[in-house]
Amino acid sequence: MKSLYPTYDVIVVGAGHAGSEAAGAAAEMGAQTLLITMNLDAIAKMSCNPAIGGVAKGQLVREIDALGGLMGRVADKSAVQFRMLNTSKGPAMWSPRCQSDRALYCTMMREELEKKENLHFRQDNVVDIITVNEGKRAAGVRTSTGQIFEAQSVILTTGTFGNGLMHIGETNFGGGRSGERASVGISAALEKLGFEVGRLKTGTPPRLDGRSIDYDRLEIQYGDEDPSPFSFMTDSLPSREEQLTCWIGFTNQKVHDMLRSGFDRSPMFNGTIESTGPRYCPSIEDKINRFSEKDSHQLFLEPEGWDTYEMYLNGFSTSLPEDVQYKALRTIPGFEEAVMLRPGYAIEYDYFPPYQIRRSMETKITDGLFFAGQINGTTGYEEAACQGLMAGINAVRKVQGKEEFILKRSEAYIGVLIDDLITKGTEEPYRMFTSRAEHRILLRQDNADLRLTDLGHKIGLASDERFERYKTKNQAIDQLHDLISDYTVYPEKMDPMLKEQGTSILSQPVKAKTLIPRPQLSIYNLFEADAELKEKAHAITDDRDVFDQVEIQIKYAGYIEKEFEMVEEMRKQEDTIIPDTLDYGKINSLSAEGTQKMERIRPETLGQASRISGVSPSDISVLMVYLKN
Amino acid sequence: MKSLYPTYDVIVVGAGHAGSEAAGAAAEMGAQTLLITMNLDAIAKMSCNPAIGGVAKGQLVREIDALGGLMGRVADKSAVQFRMLNTSKGPAMWSPRCQSDRALYCTMMREELEKKENLHFRQDNVVDIITVNEGKRAAGVRTSTGQIFEAQSVILTTGTFGNGLMHIGETNFGGGRSGERASVGISAALEKLGFEVGRLKTGTPPRLDGRSIDYDRLEIQYGDEDPSPFSFMTDSLPSREEQLTCWIGFTNQKVHDMLRSGFDRSPMFNGTIESTGPRYCPSIEDKINRFSEKDSHQLFLEPEGWDTYEMYLNGFSTSLPEDVQYKALRTIPGFEEAVMLRPGYAIEYDYFPPYQIRRSMETKITDGLFFAGQINGTTGYEEAACQGLMAGINAVRKVQGKEEFILKRSEAYIGVLIDDLITKGTEEPYRMFTSRAEHRILLRQDNADLRLTDLGHKIGLASDERFERYKTKNQAIDQLHDLISDYTVYPEKMDPMLKEQGTSILSQPVKAKTLIPRPQLSIYNLFEADAELKEKAHAITDDRDVFDQVEIQIKYAGYIEKEFEMVEEMRKQEDTIIPDTLDYGKINSLSAEGTQKMERIRPETLGQASRISGVSPSDISVLMVYLKN
Repeated sequence: MKSLYPTYDVIVVGAGHAGSEAAGAAAEMGAQTLLITMNLDAIAKMSCNPAIGGVAKGQLVREIDALGGLMGRVADKSAVQFRMLNTSKGPAMWSPRCQSDRALYCTMMREELEKKENLHFRQDNVVDIITVNEGKRAAGVRTSTGQIFEAQSVILTTGTFGNGLMHIGETNFGGGRSGERASVGISAALEKLGFEVGRLKTGTPPRLDGRSIDYDRLEIQYGDEDPSPFSFMTDSLPSREEQLTCWIGFTNQKVHDMLRSGFDRSPMFNGTIESTGPRYCPSIEDKINRFSEKDSHQLFLEPEGWDTYEMYLNGFSTSLPEDVQYKALRTIPGFEEAVMLRPGYAIEYDYFPPYQIRRSMETKITDGLFFAGQINGTTGYEEAACQGLMAGINAVRKVQGKEEFILKRSEAYIGVLIDDLITKGTEEPYRMFTSRAEHRILLRQDNADLRLTDLGHKIGLASDERFERYKTKNQAIDQLHDLISDYTVYPEKMDPMLKEQGTSILSQPVKAKTLIPRPQLSIYNLFEADAELKEKAHAITDDRDVFDQVEIQIKYAGYIEKEFEMVEEMRKQEDTIIPDTLDYGKINSLSAEGTQKMERIRPETLGQASRISGVSPSDISVLMVYLKN
Repeated sequence: MKSLYPTYDVIVVGAGHAGSEAAGAAAEMGAQTLLITMNLDAIAKMSCNPAIGGVAKGQLVREIDALGGLMGRVADKSAVQFRMLNTSKGPAMWSPRCQSDRALYCTMMREELEKKENLHFRQDNVVDIITVNEGKRAAGVRTSTGQIFEAQSVILTTGTFGNGLMHIGETNFGGGRSGERASVGISAALEKLGFEVGRLKTGTPPRLDGRSIDYDRLEIQYGDEDPSPFSFMTDSLPSREEQLTCWIGFTNQKVHDMLRSGFDRSPMFNGTIESTGPRYCPSIEDKINRFSEKDSHQLFLEPEGWDTYEMYLNGFSTSLPEDVQYKALRTIPGFEEAVMLRPGYAIEYDYFPPYQIRRSMETKITDGLFFAGQINGTTGYEEAACQGLMAGINAVRKVQGKEEFILKRSEAYIGVLIDDLITKGTEEPYRMFTSRAEHRILLRQDNADLRLTDLGHKIGLASDERFERYKTKNQAIDQLHDLISDYTVYPEKMDPMLKEQGTSILSQPVKAKTLIPRPQLSIYNLFEADAELKEKAHAITDDRDVFDQVEIQIKYAGYIEKEFEMVEEMRKQEDTIIPDTLDYGKINSLSAEGTQKMERIRPETLGQASRISGVSPSDISVLMVYLKN
């Protein structure tokens, strides 16, 4: 059968967080893009918690935004609360997070996507992948309505829909998300092409009727007084008073006992579910099982939107039988009368161990076929979205005959994530953490634009407006940096402030720059103490982000410089490309394990090879010598 | 297994247009109500055209609103265009209609439902009906998650989900609505209880990408300059300039030839679909087949919302193979480049021939079990909604031990609809028309509040605020009616106006009332001609609805009076109750056919009996005599 329709440049299958970014990026970069989803009314649905960002995830969103992706802007517009996490720690740890209006997020993502001239929608269910050249080249997809859609690049973002099976206690049924059916066919097609398929698990807590909660027994949690946006393009956000609040509750031994009473009927513990769930986003039964010494776990009660009383009970993910969920829930202080709108459930779904993809997100087996999101074994909206973005970018570049767009581990959390997936694999759903990034002092949320906007603009994704804004900011940073470096401050003006801040006074005039590294001082203290300095600074800019950036750059200059040196040291390895066709078996003196692992993973660079567990430093030396000759 | 949860008063299964009204009404009337839906994010979804109201349907919405239902208010708030249809005909034909923002309608209906204190939500899939007393009494439902929910009244509103099977050409697959899965289990449960099940069909056109249409080749259709709301509680609506426009296109012989080329692969014509579709909302292939002499059919291109380019092609419903749909579509002038977001499809679904329900919507077989909407063989959001409302009301009254709330054919289109369903059955999906109402001169959209708000308030559904508004209006109508009846107008003031309007001048002073029946004159002409009259009128009210109402009452007084006389004549039959237990076989001299039909349908009144086809006037006489003794 021939396709009825013109050949597209890029087809994106699935319109969750990965698919939306992929389609948005591909279309923005000029590719004729078709986004196929089973339900056009459920684009970018938040299937789990109504929140975007958080530790390390917030950094991912800032990076997506800096490159020109959609998540940050949509999150800003649809949020009901903003909080910057970890502000008591150093700037590398600061992580923006918001609570979202779940329905609004969907609506606004669809609106953003509808603005893309080259993007086309199709509501349908993809059941097969069309290939040519004996499966070595992707050519399109076939849908359940019997249609064929052809494209040069195909991006699969199947999320939890691939052969999705939902569990509540001893009950299980096919489904891709609560209330939605599973997608069947794609996995079998991929297996036929030679892909290894695996199975993972995730879960979600019950949704509650907010009217049934005794809020007096919970701690209230407000949003930030002075909220920070995700997007470098967002200029205003709701004040703390305008934001919604969350609440914090706690489990206790009685709750745990009640939960334990259902373990024999738990699909997690009785062998029904064999696949692994996310370690760092465990179910409540997992938590009380693994941390049996803890007699209480914290729970966050989060609103699902501006105009609904539906609430999300973060921390109470469970697939225990509903009677156990219900009774345990009602044992939690404040939840004695709680009513569930939907019970928690676990879901098992297909994924494809990610050693099978390249850093461009293209699969190693089938040219022009890209994977992004949970299909690669990750968990989290942000992890999915950044993969979607990278897949979208590279799918277009493939069509345009351009080289792959790769982000290094030293450039972005996105680079860390993708490199980790390929070199380390995922035995369990992969979630981003700051600890995964060895260069995290460089990969801060505050400088994502400085790191990535130029790159995003060069590839045709970040808009001119965004690029201009970045340039203006960058210029102001340079000017302010120069000012602070050159400007001399005098004891007369500084000392009263220094005393007040509890730090030693000046014995002589110094450059303003030298004071900023003191932990007690911020750039604003200097402005306060020296009106002329303040005036000169404000003559450059009124943008607080610029002031903060310069302060961070000066305060942490030592660390940052050292980190850059380390990056430089490793650059040689990172830049040494290993040819696709390398036959590891032919290289003498490689270890057996090293050979086997590298044959399987086929690292793209020497740096990647060095991070594969089982590949020894001496293997790397051997490889280095081999590649030089 | 016992239920985990407290027993509810009323359970509503399904949250489409019937289910939403049923749940809203039941909760508003004080019943602890549980609304169970497969997807809480798809409440009151418009599965077909993005429009509410229309000929006779608009009257239904006004009646729903007058009683205190939700559809009118939600339609007003989510509409993108308003038009009063049939304004060139008499006031009995005037029918309000709007185009809706499909997503906004869902959101706002959910918001309205969330305001009901006694309403509880559950996302789940009902697979079985729980009964007691050998199936003679409903007791609750069982869901796919294995839970039991108990209630005294259960309302089923399964729409097209009951064993839904979707067709596009030779392809078919299970589904309840585009992108959503079917519901399986309820039909089998009902059959086991002794219900007769049937199969109906409906369909929907392709959805189009609005960017691909050549609007210059279509006629534009604006909304009304001075739009009329559905709800008697709505005070302001967007102006014509603020409203969106629709467009009109036409098929031609080439389009028809293209469509015909797919007839051999059409599930409608090759025997795959055996069930009957809605005669008055036919597919395009039906139209060109049945009206082969017509060389063109009108199509309406309707926006799906404020912020989307998705468009609905009203009049082009089809289940032809997608290639035929596509090629035929692109043969329509203006649609040469049209892109489909989703193809049209037909859907077959289970219904239960409605002789099996009472006028209260309760089933005759199982006490406490109610059916509403497409499950009773109707088509249309408005037809579904009004049944849902009646089922909700009566489910509560059942629980409260109150008598059934019945609307007569002379009181409301709603009464006509339900009576038609029961006495006439539905061989094909039933749609409301003005011609179905023998008393339509009484059942106007303009007087729905005057007919029904008092009733709605008495049963605890229409709010006090609505009742006060109704009373104030009613009072003003009486006062204005008195004024116009008593006020004398003089030739000096009237004659210039009468000449201008082209009607004969006065020979002597007359009561203002006597002029209004003249077809050339409106009440406003009299106001213009006589400032004193105008001033006195405005001293009573500034409400144009009152002016219009009085004008209609006076202008059509003759017809209205005659109609009331006819209602009065038939009242005796309508009020003569036939006992549930009547054994027709024991009544001598009833015709065989009459006996058989009445045994099956079990009419509740002599009036109903008289409308059953096959029951003769002499049967009615026999029955009347029998019941007297």
